[in-house]
Amino acid sequence: MADVTPPESTSITDDPSYRAGVIELLGVLAVGELIAFDRLAADSRMAPTLSDKAALAGMAVTEFHHFERIRDRLDELGVSADEAMAPFYPAYERFHANTAPSDWLEGLVKAYVGDGIAADFYRAVAETVDPVTRELVREVLADAGHSEFVVQRVRDAVDADPRVAGRLVLWARRLVGEALAQAQRVAVDHDALAGLVVGSDGSGFDLAQLSELFTQLTMNHAERLARLGLSS
Amino acid sequence: MADVTPPESTSITDDPSYRAGVIELLGVLAVGELIAFDRLAADSRMAPTLSDKAALAGMAVTEFHHFERIRDRLDELGVSADEAMAPFYPAYERFHANTAPSDWLEGLVKAYVGDGIAADFYRAVAETVDPVTRELVREVLADAGHSEFVVQRVRDAVDADPRVAGRLVLWARRLVGEALAQAQRVAVDHDALAGLVVGSDGSGFDLAQLSELFTQLTMNHAERLARLGLSS
Repeated sequence: MADVTPPESTSITDDPSYRAGVIELLGVLAVGELIAFDRLAADSRMAPTLSDKAALAGMAVTEFHHFERIRDRLDELGVSADEAMAPFYPAYERFHANTAPSDWLEGLVKAYVGDGIAADFYRAVAETVDPVTRELVREVLADAGHSEFVVQRVRDAVDADPRVAGRLVLWARRLVGEALAQAQRVAVDHDALAGLVVGSDGSGFDLAQLSELFTQLTMNHAERLARLGLSS
Repeated sequence: MADVTPPESTSITDDPSYRAGVIELLGVLAVGELIAFDRLAADSRMAPTLSDKAALAGMAVTEFHHFERIRDRLDELGVSADEAMAPFYPAYERFHANTAPSDWLEGLVKAYVGDGIAADFYRAVAETVDPVTRELVREVLADAGHSEFVVQRVRDAVDADPRVAGRLVLWARRLVGEALAQAQRVAVDHDALAGLVVGSDGSGFDLAQLSELFTQLTMNHAERLARLGLSS
């Protein structure tokens, strides 16, 4: 990942625009986790067996506990999670409305690929913030050990019917396109958050680092597809 | 609750028909918790605010953790949760298909009233089983502290518009009717479970105790409606 300089201040109350950026970061993460809960729970309805259903439900539950951790931190900062989340809700809703999986496998790929990209991106952003926020972000983005389940299920399906791979590759491409489209809108609409990523005070990523970050995100994405048995 | 005699044996491996009954009990509870997760997650989509959505999602998550506890116990007994749950899935699916809430308030009433009746009933059944099973059943049926949230939200809605009460009373009545219809089918189809409740060996409820149990269930239901501000 790109090597950036975190702000010298470790207290988020010193600098109003920095504080606003952190609250936006926590808000966008919180709504992401809450909606991920929602969608994984919905996708679990397409599970072929009750234990598969339980596995996806378990992933949803992990996301909810991450949401709770962020909500607690927002509470500590004296900010209502509702208020912090509200500005980002529409972008996530659009993303999920445009990427509703049509079957169980698409749901699994979305959970794995989508979470993976989001986690890579937010972990990179977390490099630009104070240690307390950074630790929280890393913690809620830690893989909850469900990846192995998804990888196995998708590989089994591809092995059983190789034609499945082509469809899922296209699906993964659509997920990335939609994610980038919504991320761009979020960045344009939310100055404080964008300021964390490309800080005018030199604390965020410069252009070379941003380019390095996107190269890294793309490589990680390709690796994830390969692990699923999907060459992109 | 009715005062019944638990079986003298505390090991569920001694008596095959008793063991079968306990596994059916755990199976019906597990599928109930897993589907409750599913439905509460779906109902959380109707929440008027993000924090209401999070509150209902939190209830769903509690149900999932209860499911995990029962699944672990089934594992200990060498029984796959899938197999134990499968026979009871259709009854729960029918119940939920016939009682899909049409709005946020109906979802809240269903969560509160439905969970309440189920918990009362299974807690009574747990009186007839060995201490380990009984403790587990009590634990997974313990109110997770979400009731206060539901009561407050429903009372507020009824206060704001008293006409809401009439509609919700009818809704609660329909929930009870559907629950009884499905419970009866479950009892008819599952001898071992029915044997736990009305044990031919004298360990379950006799007719007088059953009658007492149903009187108690009805009284508790009426009390719950009263707490919601709904006179039945």
